[in-house]
Amino acid sequence: MSRYWSKIVSDLEPYVPGEQPKDRRYIKLNTNENPYPPSPRVIEAIKHAANDLLKLYPDPNCEDLRDAIAKYHGVDSGNVFVGNGSDEILALAFFTFFKQDLPLLFPDVTYSFYDAYCNLFNIEAKRIPIRPDFTIDLKDYIRPNGGIIFANPNALTANCISPEEIERLLEANTGSAVVVDEAYIDFGGETAIPLIKKYPNLLIIQTLSKSRSLAGLRVGFAVGEQELIEGLDRTKNSFNSYTLDRLALAGALESIKDEEYFQETCRKVIETREWTTKELGGLGFSVVPSKANFILIQHERLPAKVLFQKLRDEGILVRYFDKPRVRNHLRVTIGTEAEMKTFVQKVRELVKS
Amino acid sequence: MSRYWSKIVSDLEPYVPGEQPKDRRYIKLNTNENPYPPSPRVIEAIKHAANDLLKLYPDPNCEDLRDAIAKYHGVDSGNVFVGNGSDEILALAFFTFFKQDLPLLFPDVTYSFYDAYCNLFNIEAKRIPIRPDFTIDLKDYIRPNGGIIFANPNALTANCISPEEIERLLEANTGSAVVVDEAYIDFGGETAIPLIKKYPNLLIIQTLSKSRSLAGLRVGFAVGEQELIEGLDRTKNSFNSYTLDRLALAGALESIKDEEYFQETCRKVIETREWTTKELGGLGFSVVPSKANFILIQHERLPAKVLFQKLRDEGILVRYFDKPRVRNHLRVTIGTEAEMKTFVQKVRELVKS
Repeated sequence: MSRYWSKIVSDLEPYVPGEQPKDRRYIKLNTNENPYPPSPRVIEAIKHAANDLLKLYPDPNCEDLRDAIAKYHGVDSGNVFVGNGSDEILALAFFTFFKQDLPLLFPDVTYSFYDAYCNLFNIEAKRIPIRPDFTIDLKDYIRPNGGIIFANPNALTANCISPEEIERLLEANTGSAVVVDEAYIDFGGETAIPLIKKYPNLLIIQTLSKSRSLAGLRVGFAVGEQELIEGLDRTKNSFNSYTLDRLALAGALESIKDEEYFQETCRKVIETREWTTKELGGLGFSVVPSKANFILIQHERLPAKVLFQKLRDEGILVRYFDKPRVRNHLRVTIGTEAEMKTFVQKVRELVKS
Repeated sequence: MSRYWSKIVSDLEPYVPGEQPKDRRYIKLNTNENPYPPSPRVIEAIKHAANDLLKLYPDPNCEDLRDAIAKYHGVDSGNVFVGNGSDEILALAFFTFFKQDLPLLFPDVTYSFYDAYCNLFNIEAKRIPIRPDFTIDLKDYIRPNGGIIFANPNALTANCISPEEIERLLEANTGSAVVVDEAYIDFGGETAIPLIKKYPNLLIIQTLSKSRSLAGLRVGFAVGEQELIEGLDRTKNSFNSYTLDRLALAGALESIKDEEYFQETCRKVIETREWTTKELGGLGFSVVPSKANFILIQHERLPAKVLFQKLRDEGILVRYFDKPRVRNHLRVTIGTEAEMKTFVQKVRELVKS
């Protein structure tokens, strides 16, 4: 606390990212990164862009990247916004759409950054409990609101809602913006992007951090009706004209173009997830059905916190959340096949000891 | 305007960056970029960082870069904050320090993004007129306020205040944060960074975009007392955990280390500025004394808007601001020696025609 801070600053509850320890080499299954490297074409594109033109500002409108994403998803460039990771876009979206008289609705168990944004922008939120089986029932969101946001697949739980269910919500909720955070959609879920043509209040946010193995590059995008995109542009251009540097723009553009590598990577992660889920089932774990690159698991006997610490001692990092409802679960990122074999083997030993 | 926007969004007045036209090749003297490329060591460091580790998140605390900047400026790492260009840091600083009951003070002629931030965060501002000779007199700022910010050298005018003058302000103004935007300080000004040890309310913001030829990489930093830095961290971590990607971190780190290249580049820009100033003086221009990589000029006869258009037709872009007090001036970025010779030659022809 400092006397020079704005009053609101001491009330903020900043997001705490998963740890990135440097004390030893870990099998890192704690921050939902992709275990496979980015496409070699992306690496080459970045090296190519590492040149004298770095002295010049990047394109503030990121037109080439917007065009490529628009083409990929079958929409117009004016339907696409890009930003410094989906986190930045989420922040801008909270400001642009959710500062309303009625409360914002989101699930009680989800990406904890949503709470941080509400504190930052003084947005009143109503947290809707997920069901006992950890699913989101969108019927619970049909009530007066100043906006709706949910992650699909849901952060933390990994389960997924169909576009049909989302469309039923959109039919009922026409007065406020509905934001679907699809950070993990490429691992088996079905995107709701086609619905933007029918519903002018729907915004979809995706990221290149997970399915395109580019967490270190900081690129995300949003797709929605042109007026929603214009709102995001207004806010962004009142904050920072150039949020993506020339290297991120070049790498992201190439990533969108390399469809084959992208599909292959996602396929491998999905296969490994299904294998891991099956193995853990045989060791006394319940696993929430996942369409993401992580699984939420609970053992019938071993407390999550104990297992978390034992795995850490063995050089395997997973994520433990000391929060209501998930306190006895662990979130495990899907690593490579080899990493998950090691993980399952260690878990087997710990469960049996 | 959309019914789904937060009310505040339609009242925003986004910053408009200088144009980056693609219709033809221009001598670009309109956005204060450095005419020299970044250090070759920076390019190499970025190529080296373009690797498989891009699948992992960058260090959210940017420790290596903070350490290097701290060492360079003789302060502790805890005194340094880094961000996505000085624009992002300015935005975070406005939010962190300037949401107060009393108005923020800044010059009436300065970086126009300050107005955009005030609109964005609903900060009341009082614009203090610069003097008729376009200088800032800090005595004008000794009055009740909720914060003070000025650019030094001042954006638009290029003139500079000494650390002694800044210290006199700090002696008188102890109750609010004082932010000095030193984006252009390396072109002949003297930084106020040493004063942070004595004044806990002083924050200095610099950028690698100008003097280090890295506008395309988006890296800036702030230096101040630890509590001020903690405030910035709180806001940033409520907005976006990872604002600098792995490539920007690697390039920026190497740039800070290459002192020789940095000094040489600055020296060349300063020399060319002095030459250009002298030449323009002989052609009937008055030039505001500059310690930046640009000059603000006015011709005794030729209206600024006319000259701007004629230069544009000749393939030379400078910046014209249709704003009170500077409507009859042009802001001209200092290019290479060759570019400025062409510029002076074209101006000579236009003035005589």
